[in-house]
Amino acid sequence: MNRFGIRFSFTTFGESHGKALGTVVDGVPAGIDIDEEFIQSEMDRRKPGQNSYATARKEGDVVEILSGVFEGKSTGTPIAMVIFNENQKSRDYSNIKDLFRPGHSDFTYQHKYGIRDYRGGGRSSARETAGRVAAGAIAKLMLKEVGIDLMSGVSHIDGIGSDNYLFEHSKNSEIFSITPEFEEAQKKAILDAKAEHNSVGGTAVVKAINVPIGLGEPIYYKMDSLLADAMMGINGVKGVEIGLGEESTRTTGFDNNDQMDQHGFQSNSAGGVLGGITNGEDLIVKVHFKPTPSIFMKQSTQNIDGEQIDFELKGRHDPSIAVRGSVVAESMMALVIADLLLLNMGRKISDVARYYK
Amino acid sequence: MNRFGIRFSFTTFGESHGKALGTVVDGVPAGIDIDEEFIQSEMDRRKPGQNSYATARKEGDVVEILSGVFEGKSTGTPIAMVIFNENQKSRDYSNIKDLFRPGHSDFTYQHKYGIRDYRGGGRSSARETAGRVAAGAIAKLMLKEVGIDLMSGVSHIDGIGSDNYLFEHSKNSEIFSITPEFEEAQKKAILDAKAEHNSVGGTAVVKAINVPIGLGEPIYYKMDSLLADAMMGINGVKGVEIGLGEESTRTTGFDNNDQMDQHGFQSNSAGGVLGGITNGEDLIVKVHFKPTPSIFMKQSTQNIDGEQIDFELKGRHDPSIAVRGSVVAESMMALVIADLLLLNMGRKISDVARYYK
Amino acid sequence: MNRFGIRFSFTTFGESHGKALGTVVDGVPAGIDIDEEFIQSEMDRRKPGQNSYATARKEGDVVEILSGVFEGKSTGTPIAMVIFNENQKSRDYSNIKDLFRPGHSDFTYQHKYGIRDYRGGGRSSARETAGRVAAGAIAKLMLKEVGIDLMSGVSHIDGIGSDNYLFEHSKNSEIFSITPEFEEAQKKAILDAKAEHNSVGGTAVVKAINVPIGLGEPIYYKMDSLLADAMMGINGVKGVEIGLGEESTRTTGFDNNDQMDQHGFQSNSAGGVLGGITNGEDLIVKVHFKPTPSIFMKQSTQNIDGEQIDFELKGRHDPSIAVRGSVVAESMMALVIADLLLLNMGRKISDVARYYK
Amino acid sequence: MNRFGIRFSFTTFGESHGKALGTVVDGVPAGIDIDEEFIQSEMDRRKPGQNSYATARKEGDVVEILSGVFEGKSTGTPIAMVIFNENQKSRDYSNIKDLFRPGHSDFTYQHKYGIRDYRGGGRSSARETAGRVAAGAIAKLMLKEVGIDLMSGVSHIDGIGSDNYLFEHSKNSEIFSITPEFEEAQKKAILDAKAEHNSVGGTAVVKAINVPIGLGEPIYYKMDSLLADAMMGINGVKGVEIGLGEESTRTTGFDNNDQMDQHGFQSNSAGGVLGGITNGEDLIVKVHFKPTPSIFMKQSTQNIDGEQIDFELKGRHDPSIAVRGSVVAESMMALVIADLLLLNMGRKISDVARYYK
Repeated sequence: MNRFGIRFSFTTFGESHGKALGTVVDGVPAGIDIDEEFIQSEMDRRKPGQNSYATARKEGDVVEILSGVFEGKSTGTPIAMVIFNENQKSRDYSNIKDLFRPGHSDFTYQHKYGIRDYRGGGRSSARETAGRVAAGAIAKLMLKEVGIDLMSGVSHIDGIGSDNYLFEHSKNSEIFSITPEFEEAQKKAILDAKAEHNSVGGTAVVKAINVPIGLGEPIYYKMDSLLADAMMGINGVKGVEIGLGEESTRTTGFDNNDQMDQHGFQSNSAGGVLGGITNGEDLIVKVHFKPTPSIFMKQSTQNIDGEQIDFELKGRHDPSIAVRGSVVAESMMALVIADLLLLNMGRKISDVARYYK
Repeated sequence: MNRFGIRFSFTTFGESHGKALGTVVDGVPAGIDIDEEFIQSEMDRRKPGQNSYATARKEGDVVEILSGVFEGKSTGTPIAMVIFNENQKSRDYSNIKDLFRPGHSDFTYQHKYGIRDYRGGGRSSARETAGRVAAGAIAKLMLKEVGIDLMSGVSHIDGIGSDNYLFEHSKNSEIFSITPEFEEAQKKAILDAKAEHNSVGGTAVVKAINVPIGLGEPIYYKMDSLLADAMMGINGVKGVEIGLGEESTRTTGFDNNDQMDQHGFQSNSAGGVLGGITNGEDLIVKVHFKPTPSIFMKQSTQNIDGEQIDFELKGRHDPSIAVRGSVVAESMMALVIADLLLLNMGRKISDVARYYK
Repeated sequence: MNRFGIRFSFTTFGESHGKALGTVVDGVPAGIDIDEEFIQSEMDRRKPGQNSYATARKEGDVVEILSGVFEGKSTGTPIAMVIFNENQKSRDYSNIKDLFRPGHSDFTYQHKYGIRDYRGGGRSSARETAGRVAAGAIAKLMLKEVGIDLMSGVSHIDGIGSDNYLFEHSKNSEIFSITPEFEEAQKKAILDAKAEHNSVGGTAVVKAINVPIGLGEPIYYKMDSLLADAMMGINGVKGVEIGLGEESTRTTGFDNNDQMDQHGFQSNSAGGVLGGITNGEDLIVKVHFKPTPSIFMKQSTQNIDGEQIDFELKGRHDPSIAVRGSVVAESMMALVIADLLLLNMGRKISDVARYYK
Repeated sequence: MNRFGIRFSFTTFGESHGKALGTVVDGVPAGIDIDEEFIQSEMDRRKPGQNSYATARKEGDVVEILSGVFEGKSTGTPIAMVIFNENQKSRDYSNIKDLFRPGHSDFTYQHKYGIRDYRGGGRSSARETAGRVAAGAIAKLMLKEVGIDLMSGVSHIDGIGSDNYLFEHSKNSEIFSITPEFEEAQKKAILDAKAEHNSVGGTAVVKAINVPIGLGEPIYYKMDSLLADAMMGINGVKGVEIGLGEESTRTTGFDNNDQMDQHGFQSNSAGGVLGGITNGEDLIVKVHFKPTPSIFMKQSTQNIDGEQIDFELKGRHDPSIAVRGSVVAESMMALVIADLLLLNMGRKISDVARYYK
């Protein structure tokens, strides 16, 4: 089940250290200008190796479009994009090959499939998300045509941050922080964890603006449930909130309800969704990432024979996956909106009749 | 999009005050003893009108099985279940017919579809969840055959509670509390809100035990992402967490990783899921419900002509939807596990070969 | 897997002699006038017991709408329709309970599921198609709003007929014949078979007119492949052809190609589909039905213990299922077109942008 | 909608003269030996340019596996395969760029999408079927593990042939003929058409043996309906029959029913499917291909401005697409069986309980 979406959908493939990773995006309307530079710029936002807050590992992440684009425009046929792995160097994996790294899916893949590509985590590597970002870039090019815009960033690292977001700041922050008054403390938390060969968790926030009213297919393909699906499926995510989220459990109905006047909603506790359908307000999702499971301290684990062993991981990993994860979360929101945007067409018979007149 | 699930799936239909509500459950393995009393007992758990903490409204919620069962057993064909609405009395809806109740989906349904059944919220009423509970009961009967058991309850009301759960207690609690030392305070919070014609939020927790290792289809039909989808789609839910959830953003990798020894995992921060696949530990999900939007205080809103009006709702509603919502959340988890249990068969070619030998 | 369709879909449930049969139609655009008389008139066309060419068995087939319609209009929510079985008389099934009727699915259901509702064929009874006709009636109400019209009838019985169709005639023919010059011979073939306690096969043809150009989602949800799926899934169907069909294997490219001039296509060998997409010409499908497997002659078969036995069926059955099957085929075409009509919206970004402006 | 299948599925991408074509196969059980030589040998069967009965156009069709295989075995993750187009020479397409070739989908793609990749037919080229054959090869490797075998060939060209098949012969026939006594006449028909710059139709037959009883998910994902879908979706197919097919419309129930004795079925009119479920007999499907639409005679058509023009196609094309089409049809049957094989697991609760014990 490597596909996401119904009407606008994408499938990803590829392992961390295999020949290539990629995605096939299906259901893209014809006639969209496929700006390859924009796609690459999206890839570059997620790319590691850019500063001391992320892994030093270099991944080129150069996207090659194989199909679905003709003379610069989408044709309505599947857009396949591939990222060839540059250096599939036969590194030595003997230290992780036969054991289950704590907090990783080594254990579950091995037990489910009886085999796993242990090189760099194989399919379960966060490297898979490169395909999502490529697909998300296509979604964004589509959303741009109807005026929808997305933004994202990191609100908390290790609990440090606030719910007072300045999305603009993310572009100038090496850790995509949207809570500038906490940025230094957040950076310090990351570097401290790194220095201790440990890692820290964090929270990303994604927002979409200019979302039309009416997106979301009740009851089981709602905007909020699909966003939750999309976000919780990202590597390392353990919690998702819409609008006020958990905080709303500590309010009253009167305080939480978004009252209206003739100009519209007076607040946005709902985060832009009522009954699973967008209400025209900003769509806001919080995404909670656990600390990177790859740490360089001694840990106890099992080997594939079920024996206890102590082990210490070597390698290079992000000290906080929330940082680059925020880019993936933004891509996933674009993909969700794109799908619901198309599914929503034809909700009223008058719209259908007009379309075919 | 009123269907959920791929291999074991269900579709619900029906409006709050229409002729009937119901569900069609598809993909049920043949040969399951369909215990109608059990199904009804599940319905009764969700049923309103049972004490002062829920709405006084009476709903019989008597389930009638129309198909798919022969001589007491499932036959592999769709199990349709219907609940006829007993009193579709033509109550007077003139007070809500032409306005958008704050916190409700009146606004979004009206704008999306251009028409809405305003009687009791129509399709967006929590009454729809009766169909989910009926479907969930079938899922539970199936899960029982492989030894999987589920439990649920309310951990917090209005922020009052803890993460120290005693699921057993839920059965003896009128508010399904699993944090007994906080139960009285939780009840008081509900009754206080009710007395003020207001409402409060709360958190439900669902747990499954004896879940086999290996359930969940990476990358886009993971156990955790599907649970998030299932839970966030329940009326009034604004946040979902797996295992430690948001708390894991405030830990380090070392503390958060579930280390192993020869006996298995030494902790369960993960909530039973690694890489989207169950690891054999208890599956634990927290579900955050907003306060009931239906309150009886004066609120400002829009009418369908876009004019501001003040309005005061009449009627009977749960002062905290988290209470009965916990039953729905448990049903949804059963439905998710049932689907992934069947999809997982055939993950290895050796299993396939053995099955067909 | 009792669902058909993606965007406009339906699920059927129910067994021949169970409590009820029915369907849930999902994805219906809001605002359609749901003409219940029309729905019932569609049911009546399929209904048995109307003349000597069909089974004498009476089935009321009265459809009851349970949901999805408010003040006479579709609301965008699922339309559930149910047909209660009037006389679930505990007839004596001891003669077929323990054996596999030749040409029926008794054998395959028993082996697949280990259990079967043997009463009247249970789920595999043609009675299930009542649900399809009910769903098809909703599809037709929708298609009418964009001007699409459908017609159908029987072209051949036992090989007697021609490819020169007069669809108008079907309405006045007890066997829905569209080849009037052969009607008497066709009727005679049916009555002769009936007199011999045997049955005969036949061919139905379905046509849709005013179908917009562009319906069909290449490469794997094409108009023609979906029609083939829909038709081959009807009980007793063993062949499906589009346009010239098999005859095109005996032509040359020059003769088979539909050449064009400034006014459009000069012929319609293609049956209205090119590359899986409608071309604006009439959509034409031929559907080949085997003879009714239920015959009243002595046959050899197996019992459920695997022993050979001779057996003679009692009861009442259509001597040719092609006749009433033509109505089902027409319903299925309506359902296919409805789904592809909605899926096609949003094929061009300019359409999407205009829709959301 | 470029995906086919639910549990074992594949997505294809790519245009005839784009950078690459390919497929992503999802849901492949882990542990299958992925024999790359076998995959390439399947590609080679479909490959053009091998004799005078097919187009002289050379296509290397070298498959490269990008993911999903580790140390020679499937890992349960998506298997992406790509075929790079060797010579994307900028041939001159000015002669077809602005007109609609009769019998082709130029017209429908242009009208649906407002843009089309006209080079070699773009996405609607039969070259897309290379992806299906690659995916089908994976399916065959899986089916082999449960003992299922497939075969195919051409029974008729231009009406010349019989229903008396010798599948063995296909391997030694340049036109994959399975009716050896007609092979010379069939070849002559092809060469005659070619000499006249015309083309001819034909019929392919596909058979699977050792298919387990029970495959097929009634009512809407039946073995026969899914085969019909799969076959009708192949370029140029206009008719599909299962078992006796259309001939069964000219028999009686007594003659058509496959009677049984203690050893099983005494005949196989049904073609291996009863009620949409396999009955253990050989699965037999006939697939009718229209003549190649690409012919080199003068034809009348429209240009994209809607004006009539006369036109004569240049280039190289198969004089009968049925020949290489038979290989594609065999691949599609493998893909259908693979999907239903996996979906069938878990049909009985006793199977589920045993699997998880």
